[in-house]
Amino acid sequence: MQRIYLDNSATTKIDKKVFRAMEPYLKQDFGNASSLHWFGQNAHEAITKSRQQVADFLGCNFLEVFFIDSATISDNLAIMGVVKQALRQNSGQAQKKPHIITSQIEHPAVLELVEHLEKDGQIEATYLPVNREGVVKIEDVEKAIKENTILVSIMYANNEIGVIQPIAEIAKVIKSFKLRVPSSKVLFHIDAVQGANYLDCNVDKLGVDLLTLSGHKIYGPKGIGVLYKRKGVEIEPIIFGGHQERGLMPGTENTTTIVGLGKAIQQVSSFKFQVSKIEELRNKLIDGILNSISGTSLNGSRENRLPNNANISFSGVEGESILMALDQKGVAVSTGSACASGNLDPSHVLMALGVGVERAHSSIRFTLGKYNTEKEIDYVLKILPGIIEKLRKISPLK
Amino acid sequence: MQRIYLDNSATTKIDKKVFRAMEPYLKQDFGNASSLHWFGQNAHEAITKSRQQVADFLGCNFLEVFFIDSATISDNLAIMGVVKQALRQNSGQAQKKPHIITSQIEHPAVLELVEHLEKDGQIEATYLPVNREGVVKIEDVEKAIKENTILVSIMYANNEIGVIQPIAEIAKVIKSFKLRVPSSKVLFHIDAVQGANYLDCNVDKLGVDLLTLSGHKIYGPKGIGVLYKRKGVEIEPIIFGGHQERGLMPGTENTTTIVGLGKAIQQVSSFKFQVSKIEELRNKLIDGILNSISGTSLNGSRENRLPNNANISFSGVEGESILMALDQKGVAVSTGSACASGNLDPSHVLMALGVGVERAHSSIRFTLGKYNTEKEIDYVLKILPGIIEKLRKISPLK
Repeated sequence: MQRIYLDNSATTKIDKKVFRAMEPYLKQDFGNASSLHWFGQNAHEAITKSRQQVADFLGCNFLEVFFIDSATISDNLAIMGVVKQALRQNSGQAQKKPHIITSQIEHPAVLELVEHLEKDGQIEATYLPVNREGVVKIEDVEKAIKENTILVSIMYANNEIGVIQPIAEIAKVIKSFKLRVPSSKVLFHIDAVQGANYLDCNVDKLGVDLLTLSGHKIYGPKGIGVLYKRKGVEIEPIIFGGHQERGLMPGTENTTTIVGLGKAIQQVSSFKFQVSKIEELRNKLIDGILNSISGTSLNGSRENRLPNNANISFSGVEGESILMALDQKGVAVSTGSACASGNLDPSHVLMALGVGVERAHSSIRFTLGKYNTEKEIDYVLKILPGIIEKLRKISPLK
Repeated sequence: MQRIYLDNSATTKIDKKVFRAMEPYLKQDFGNASSLHWFGQNAHEAITKSRQQVADFLGCNFLEVFFIDSATISDNLAIMGVVKQALRQNSGQAQKKPHIITSQIEHPAVLELVEHLEKDGQIEATYLPVNREGVVKIEDVEKAIKENTILVSIMYANNEIGVIQPIAEIAKVIKSFKLRVPSSKVLFHIDAVQGANYLDCNVDKLGVDLLTLSGHKIYGPKGIGVLYKRKGVEIEPIIFGGHQERGLMPGTENTTTIVGLGKAIQQVSSFKFQVSKIEELRNKLIDGILNSISGTSLNGSRENRLPNNANISFSGVEGESILMALDQKGVAVSTGSACASGNLDPSHVLMALGVGVERAHSSIRFTLGKYNTEKEIDYVLKILPGIIEKLRKISPLK
């Protein structure tokens, strides 16, 4: 069966050049990068090269780049690391609980952690709403930020609806608050996992202190992420047991995936030339669906959106039924994030848009990638109307 | 230059069969195992197969096997997970602090974590000494265990000196304490990372509740570990953000390394037939050195030791100088664990044996593996006396 992959926000296929860069480290170049002999130094050099590739991408110094075993751990390290640091500094003093600002549409790696820390009584949290388009309002950030705020964590682009947040503007709000309140130590973290393929990730232009990247969303390997940590920003480790990544990610360095991430991030620059092709195909898909199938609507802003994302509701049909029907025809899509699969609650992202439970349950996320072709989009547009018609006939939601 | 790798406790070369098993997941089979479509289910099935391979090795149910991003994280999860669970149950009650028993010669992933938790005031800790041979004494465990003990964490075999601990006997002590004190909830965790290639890891025979394995020490990939958790044992997560590994390791499953670990662990059974060859070569190396170079001594028990480990002190010479000189001749060894490289303190393991600072600083760890040949050992025995003689002449330790 011909297979069409339209789930590139869940994971991407490793680029051939990335695989070739990784291969030696799965074979003869297997040394432990912490070993002092030739095998170890060989691995160490490869990691240093990869660190520089990431630094070039982020526009930072390579010492500000930390390889972390996954983007989820990187998000956890950024947030818990800042919280632990603040709690230690507060200890013994009758200070207010540290306060964190995040949004209602964050990835679970941020949202579930902040909720856990809040429930555990360690922090106070503000979950910013988004407007109907899926965008955080600058005024809401301005209102939420206060003296005991230690961290703002907002995603660059959303994993379900692809909506892009005004990161540089939020950074300005934080900066101006810090000028007004010189004792304030508020830091700014962004999860740039979904944005990295398409958006400018220069940390100075963005004005962020901490930033998370993932290997497997940029045609690199799974099991590796990056934490960018601005020079001078201090965070506490959350895992213990070795000096690796200057104590922030103890455990033997995974040279293979680190090399893969470095190569993948280097490839992103050249890949950006193909973005307009992806955007054209995505537009064809959205317009084709909205025009040929009644009761369909795009979730989230159309303009302020990653060029590869189409999140569409099909009224009267359950998203999972559409997913299964498309899968039987060889087309891979998702109902939301892969991280929430098996969860029967409606998407927290779509609910935050205010679309209501029914529309949230009837949504499909199509996320294109650099390997998709016009023929594939044509095929989806050909089979989808029939699938929806058939499902609507048998749907209990009617 | 001919390269001879005698640092198999730092990391091992991936077995060709393991690489071949991993390769498809780095190419066409790239799906996110949490995705519901074909690509995802394909990855999910591969992970299930690997989980069964690990379960077969440990003699447990596959639902007791959790894939964790590294053995270091697995050790952290086992210990912090039990501590967090105990603190939650104690909260609000005027109970004693949870108590953990470990040994003075643990891997940093256990030792540094326990020290951190103790310093942080969360727990009380006992660090058991070892005898001159490097073995924990059963009476010491009996004396240390008490009503508020929640966890005993002892390594199966040591990473620096290869000495094997009496795990089954320690389990009996814990079991008999629990019979005497029915309110006791003490659990038993072992770090079996170094033991897995050579020792029986049947969890029922060992009598353990929690066990840690690593992929890259058994000719599998880096960046993957296992936590065995006995049915009914409850621990809290330490990372948040997804349902993966039933909430204990959130983040996209790394299918490639999971498949690699499964294949590697399956290979261990067949590899065990070669162990006597490795032991012969190791014995030849130890006897050759002790007989031909004066002022040398083996650190740790000779009998109660992994068949691939030789940790030897060369009086009057610094270990790092020997390492560098051997590296120049193409021979890779280490002075201790790779995780402690760059640390100028004497090895905590050798200090616990009571050998003294000077001897601790003059030690070299040779760890053989399945690819070593007699010719390689002969070469090392040929060049080593000259190296030591030369270094002794210029040594400041003289």
